[in-house]
Amino acid sequence: MTARVLDGKALSRKMEAELSARVAEIKSRTGGCSPILATILVGDDPSSATYVKMKGNACRRIGMESLTVELAQTTSTEELLAQIDSLNADPLVQGILLQHPVPAQIDERQCFDRIALAKDVDGVTVLGFGAMAMGLPAFGSATPAGIMRLLQHHGVGIEGRHAVVVGRSPILGKPIAMMLLNANATVTICHSKTEGLADLIGQADIVIGAVGKPEFIKGCWIKEGAVVVDAGYHPGGIGDIELPAVIDRCSAYTPVPGGVGPMTIATLMEQTVCAAEKHF
Amino acid sequence: MTARVLDGKALSRKMEAELSARVAEIKSRTGGCSPILATILVGDDPSSATYVKMKGNACRRIGMESLTVELAQTTSTEELLAQIDSLNADPLVQGILLQHPVPAQIDERQCFDRIALAKDVDGVTVLGFGAMAMGLPAFGSATPAGIMRLLQHHGVGIEGRHAVVVGRSPILGKPIAMMLLNANATVTICHSKTEGLADLIGQADIVIGAVGKPEFIKGCWIKEGAVVVDAGYHPGGIGDIELPAVIDRCSAYTPVPGGVGPMTIATLMEQTVCAAEKHF
Repeated sequence: MTARVLDGKALSRKMEAELSARVAEIKSRTGGCSPILATILVGDDPSSATYVKMKGNACRRIGMESLTVELAQTTSTEELLAQIDSLNADPLVQGILLQHPVPAQIDERQCFDRIALAKDVDGVTVLGFGAMAMGLPAFGSATPAGIMRLLQHHGVGIEGRHAVVVGRSPILGKPIAMMLLNANATVTICHSKTEGLADLIGQADIVIGAVGKPEFIKGCWIKEGAVVVDAGYHPGGIGDIELPAVIDRCSAYTPVPGGVGPMTIATLMEQTVCAAEKHF
Repeated sequence: MTARVLDGKALSRKMEAELSARVAEIKSRTGGCSPILATILVGDDPSSATYVKMKGNACRRIGMESLTVELAQTTSTEELLAQIDSLNADPLVQGILLQHPVPAQIDERQCFDRIALAKDVDGVTVLGFGAMAMGLPAFGSATPAGIMRLLQHHGVGIEGRHAVVVGRSPILGKPIAMMLLNANATVTICHSKTEGLADLIGQADIVIGAVGKPEFIKGCWIKEGAVVVDAGYHPGGIGDIELPAVIDRCSAYTPVPGGVGPMTIATLMEQTVCAAEKHF
């Protein structure tokens, strides 16, 4: 079987081309006003700095402005909340992204939830999660929303299929489970306390690796013809799923890198453009 | 095997005794102020009227006051929202329950979400669902929260067990799935589009019937030794699960009636008392 490659890089390029046109449309309609995504980077974690830079580059590629707010490693919760309040109140800013993780002294959950729902283009608020889970309009968490977009673009059937999600984080495992459920999949959520994980994964029509451990999910666990989605990324370009061992037996897979990663950023861009279109 | 009866009636009586003492404590501490649960009944559905009456009776049994707001069948969304605003602003009211379902011309979701989070003792808001799902403090939806309480009271092991939830409604299937997940169960959510339902149910250590169809889940699908929770109630005292066919093979079950139903009301009472304790 030749597996289909769920190429996130290609789709993200296509999305960026469409988004460039939408940004140009906003600019022409408003006499030059550009949508702005504000990204907040707290502390000096080098990976976080790289992610923020990548998001800024994506903004530039589609003609949108980005505003990076850099705060010291010693920032307090109160200081970060004040910064978010100020961006919430700023009519020039349509989207706010707080780069995860923040330093340990900060109450990250409280800060996420301070982001105004209309500007929560990264889909991190509890309110946005609840609304999305109930099928109401809300920006989904960017990585799972990007996965759904990639599956739908490639015509992967979801309704009635059994999706097994490995991981239950607030921004990945829990929201992708709800999105797949709302798309009429039967959904099983597994995690560190799950017993018989290999057996459960063996039943999956769609496997979502969202556990954050390199090649934790073995290729031999996955049944022939399954769709394999790997949301992990670890040094050496490997994901959460042992891809080489399943690549010849699955029906479709996301490459690592070049699968889920680019879709996360493209989704963030698209949600920011949506927010701007509603605003202007 | 003699199955344990997960007797919701007995546990709800025990809870009411404890709640009576807590209400008395509030009254003595405040010089006679009683917690008040406001229930809103819209229209003339006889079952809804019965449910509201049962909740008022439960308030009286624990010494708490209830205030029933009855609105006409022709009430508009705007009128209902205004009523909720008025109860949100009323310092004498600590809990608000909007009896589901409301007449079809009303946007029920908008009205649910208008209830202030601190007064959402029935756990129906999107914000409360999101917070609960993320493991933050919030009142859970009363029926699933009552089920969790019943399981925990009877020492039913949840961590690492495979729970299969049949149904995905906003106030039952989705929240019980998140509660079981947060209690470290592996959770599968099934629904009308699920293929191979009998096989999936056959794997369950814990089966939650939350589908709203009489005896839809056949007893022979359920494996020996499973824990059977039936959240359905239909005329003739039958639930969503064909209980007589599994009663001799399961390890524990909720009777219908007398299982989940009384726990829903007791949980509503407890959450109202909690809200009042925070308020006074």
